[in-house]
Amino acid sequence: MLKGIAASSGIAIAKVYKLEMPKMEIEKKSADAAEEVAKLKSAVDKTVQDIELIKERAAANLSAEELAVFDAHLMVAQDPEFIGAVEGQITTENCNAEFAAETVANMYVSMFESMDDAYMRERAADIKDVTVRLKANLLGVKIPDLTTIDEEVVIVAYDLTPSDTAQLNKKYTKGFATEIGGRTSHSAIMARSLEIPAVVGCAGILETANDGDSIIMDAIAGKVILNPDDATVKEYEVKRTAFEEEKEALKVLIDAPSISTDGHHVELAGNIGTPNDVQGVLDNGGEGIGLYRTEFLYMNSQDFPTEEEQFVAYKLVLEGMKGKRVVVRTLDIGGDKKLPYFEFPEEMNPFLGYRAIRLCLDRTDIFKVQLRALCRASVYGKLCIMFPMIATVQEFKDAKAIFEEVKAELIAEGVKVADDIEVGMMVEIPAAAVLADQFAKVADFFSIGTNDLIQYSMAADRMSEKVSYLYQPYNPSILRLIKMTIDGAHKEGKWAGMCGEMAGEPDAAAILLGLGLDEFSMSASSILKARKVITSLSKKEMEDVAAKCLEMDNAEEVQAYVQSVINK
Amino acid sequence: MLKGIAASSGIAIAKVYKLEMPKMEIEKKSADAAEEVAKLKSAVDKTVQDIELIKERAAANLSAEELAVFDAHLMVAQDPEFIGAVEGQITTENCNAEFAAETVANMYVSMFESMDDAYMRERAADIKDVTVRLKANLLGVKIPDLTTIDEEVVIVAYDLTPSDTAQLNKKYTKGFATEIGGRTSHSAIMARSLEIPAVVGCAGILETANDGDSIIMDAIAGKVILNPDDATVKEYEVKRTAFEEEKEALKVLIDAPSISTDGHHVELAGNIGTPNDVQGVLDNGGEGIGLYRTEFLYMNSQDFPTEEEQFVAYKLVLEGMKGKRVVVRTLDIGGDKKLPYFEFPEEMNPFLGYRAIRLCLDRTDIFKVQLRALCRASVYGKLCIMFPMIATVQEFKDAKAIFEEVKAELIAEGVKVADDIEVGMMVEIPAAAVLADQFAKVADFFSIGTNDLIQYSMAADRMSEKVSYLYQPYNPSILRLIKMTIDGAHKEGKWAGMCGEMAGEPDAAAILLGLGLDEFSMSASSILKARKVITSLSKKEMEDVAAKCLEMDNAEEVQAYVQSVINK
Repeated sequence: MLKGIAASSGIAIAKVYKLEMPKMEIEKKSADAAEEVAKLKSAVDKTVQDIELIKERAAANLSAEELAVFDAHLMVAQDPEFIGAVEGQITTENCNAEFAAETVANMYVSMFESMDDAYMRERAADIKDVTVRLKANLLGVKIPDLTTIDEEVVIVAYDLTPSDTAQLNKKYTKGFATEIGGRTSHSAIMARSLEIPAVVGCAGILETANDGDSIIMDAIAGKVILNPDDATVKEYEVKRTAFEEEKEALKVLIDAPSISTDGHHVELAGNIGTPNDVQGVLDNGGEGIGLYRTEFLYMNSQDFPTEEEQFVAYKLVLEGMKGKRVVVRTLDIGGDKKLPYFEFPEEMNPFLGYRAIRLCLDRTDIFKVQLRALCRASVYGKLCIMFPMIATVQEFKDAKAIFEEVKAELIAEGVKVADDIEVGMMVEIPAAAVLADQFAKVADFFSIGTNDLIQYSMAADRMSEKVSYLYQPYNPSILRLIKMTIDGAHKEGKWAGMCGEMAGEPDAAAILLGLGLDEFSMSASSILKARKVITSLSKKEMEDVAAKCLEMDNAEEVQAYVQSVINK
Repeated sequence: MLKGIAASSGIAIAKVYKLEMPKMEIEKKSADAAEEVAKLKSAVDKTVQDIELIKERAAANLSAEELAVFDAHLMVAQDPEFIGAVEGQITTENCNAEFAAETVANMYVSMFESMDDAYMRERAADIKDVTVRLKANLLGVKIPDLTTIDEEVVIVAYDLTPSDTAQLNKKYTKGFATEIGGRTSHSAIMARSLEIPAVVGCAGILETANDGDSIIMDAIAGKVILNPDDATVKEYEVKRTAFEEEKEALKVLIDAPSISTDGHHVELAGNIGTPNDVQGVLDNGGEGIGLYRTEFLYMNSQDFPTEEEQFVAYKLVLEGMKGKRVVVRTLDIGGDKKLPYFEFPEEMNPFLGYRAIRLCLDRTDIFKVQLRALCRASVYGKLCIMFPMIATVQEFKDAKAIFEEVKAELIAEGVKVADDIEVGMMVEIPAAAVLADQFAKVADFFSIGTNDLIQYSMAADRMSEKVSYLYQPYNPSILRLIKMTIDGAHKEGKWAGMCGEMAGEPDAAAILLGLGLDEFSMSASSILKARKVITSLSKKEMEDVAAKCLEMDNAEEVQAYVQSVINK
């Protein structure tokens, strides 16, 4: 039994699928050339078959354009010049095939990578990918591949990258467990968005679990049981059924209004990363999109997405939400989010550096493309544009001015732009919370980003293990900053929402209701639970609870008190 | 003419001394062995002479213990085994002497560095140092050495390290100009502490200035003029005299009280890094030490300083200040301040990581040694202990409990400890400022650290060029956080000071007087100017000025307004 952090609720009972790249350390050995050439040929054949199989299986989930990469890989694997060069190396050096393959591939890769032409540089990536497969086939080791999974599994990995999560097949993936990560790491957020149970930060799992082991993952309590006995499996089957029934029961709230017992309405919205996530928000009764993280559009791309590509995505989301409010956050890149095609400056503290709106105000060429796409899409729904990482009023004014400029340009070009676009900002920097009353004079709305707000207010990187104890959403200092933000907005007749992880937690929702938060945006899978909480509480009573919390001096006391009130 | 940032006021007219390590890229060449051996011998002789000369010149400034390093270097330079091995390499390989010296030295260095014994590992450092000199003599290039300077110079460097500044000879060093850095970088702070004029962040100076050029450095306007004509030199001689006269005139305020025109007293104190700095604070009329940065004791050491070493230093400072208040900050290490003998965890954002009190609460063995030394020294003056980087009330309570434990231990051992030690904290994390009223219930005093407070509140690393525009001491959000801190302290009858760079700036001092700050601690050289400002203002009037500033929405407006009031 291993302990971890429950990152996305649920219970999974399945087989382990380990997503781990095999170590392939290759040394030069002298070998019989004829034998090695024969080995090479059969490995090449196997590699071609592998790629064809992957392509076939991926066809169900990927677009034609996305599938094209496999054709490029097939071309490399069947390229007579490349394979011929490897053969040549084997026969002149009388060396092992895997060493020859590696040497020749490295030569081609460095040749292509040094070229100015972007097309040729992409070929280097193709050669690398194919060479990994070829070497694995020569050495007889397995390359894990999520698209080939065809039975129910729990994926066990060190961590999942954005491209791993994009390949997850919900039909067979019953959950995943990762060695590292916390409740707010990328893979945890994605798990909630995909509604796949997940346990993260499960130290030791990679070493302990083996491919094909049976596994119970309890992503409610945050634990994993490997090779359980029959009694334990039965016990967890009962728990799984209970969990699913509870989830089912919440569905009666899908079309219910989010109104407190004393008649105060709040908006419960969903956070999304791609247009595909819209359906999940609607299925869970979301009243809007409170955060559309557009950075995925940039991160899953080979170059900056064009205005047209962006327009298509934004239009899809706006149409999908049928006139409900959609808050689109402009490019929030930098910090721990990098782009493969853009070079960031080397910084000692990237979280305190060149990122998000700072980058966009510096690189208005990049910023304007996104704003044009957003303005063009604005006529398909109710669009709100939100700038991330605003620290000063001047930055907001500068960003807003660029928006106005782009809008005027489009209108001059004869393009229709909605005239009710709201332009607001994230409040995730302490200075913005403290000066919220001034910001509210220029911004149309606020959305509080708790992850960063807590991180900066406490001066503690939540990813740094040694100081993660300072990530305290319930610390009264954080609650006071939230109150300043909400009060600042209301003073100027604006609305204040929250799109951080905190908005989806029942205890926090109670305090936030009391502090007067207008909009709560969270993972789709949390919406119904939050609605149950909100509809069972009196706003008036929560105002008193929140006021008491603001005068406490530590997070534990706050949380214990709130729980004692809402569970009574 | 080059522009930079005036980091320490004054005007210097002297010759350029470039502090720049020569590039010594060495390749193996075939050469006549006899000739190379002869070259080696004469280079060895020259190296021995160099080291003896440096030792002789350093004798005036360094202790016997510090001088011992030169004896170790002489032993290496004269070691028959080492020099014999280089000769052997030359004759067997018929190669150039510098290549042989480098190869042999590298071998010895890696051998010594791999040993478990600390003494032997230090020998590796000696061999490295001597080899640099030996190679320079073989190649005929200059190794700059601050201790050998014997004429009036302005030092031109990329940046100055703490050990460079420790070697500066105030008699000949009329100023320094560095390529990088800002007003709050280490070298800027040291320049003010040493009262040497300095211009930092002077991009291009390393490339433009040559050794021996005549140079005018205007560290009031922040500019540097290379090879000026006679008229310009005359003009700046006049300016220099005027500056010195003004400085002289301020001396009448040395014993004057720091009282506003309407009778409100504040304390003007000095920031120090070592016991040597105490005299400068007294000479400039400091009423106390508002910040003793004990990390220098750790950084300029080969291992953690012992309790006895620390006791001696703290006693010196307390006795030197003759009963005036001395605020000692406990170890503030981590972030950009590393120790050569302590391994920090790899972190993505060290400013948001394992540092200062976080490290001390984790490594109480290190923390207790310092607290014992402080308690023992407490009977020699008026001691205040201050914890850095406090984010939560629990952290303060934990640190205070360790202090109480150490104090009780000492008393049980029969050691006398003062019973009026005040125990307070830095307010440099936004969460602490926001919750100051709660912290004031447990802490005896606050001292606001503006550098970090601004950095975290704005989520901007001031060392990162791309976002340094966000380092805004006059941003109303920062002023509000300062107000929360002062009000929080006063509510509980505690005092609030500031030991950041801001306290020494005249415009800021006016606002801070209005906000009710009790203690202003700054570089010694800023104290008299600050006293002139404080004694010329009415606190009542400044209260109104500060109140207006708190309702503005940007830093420029605040600063322009304050200047218009105080300069009228």
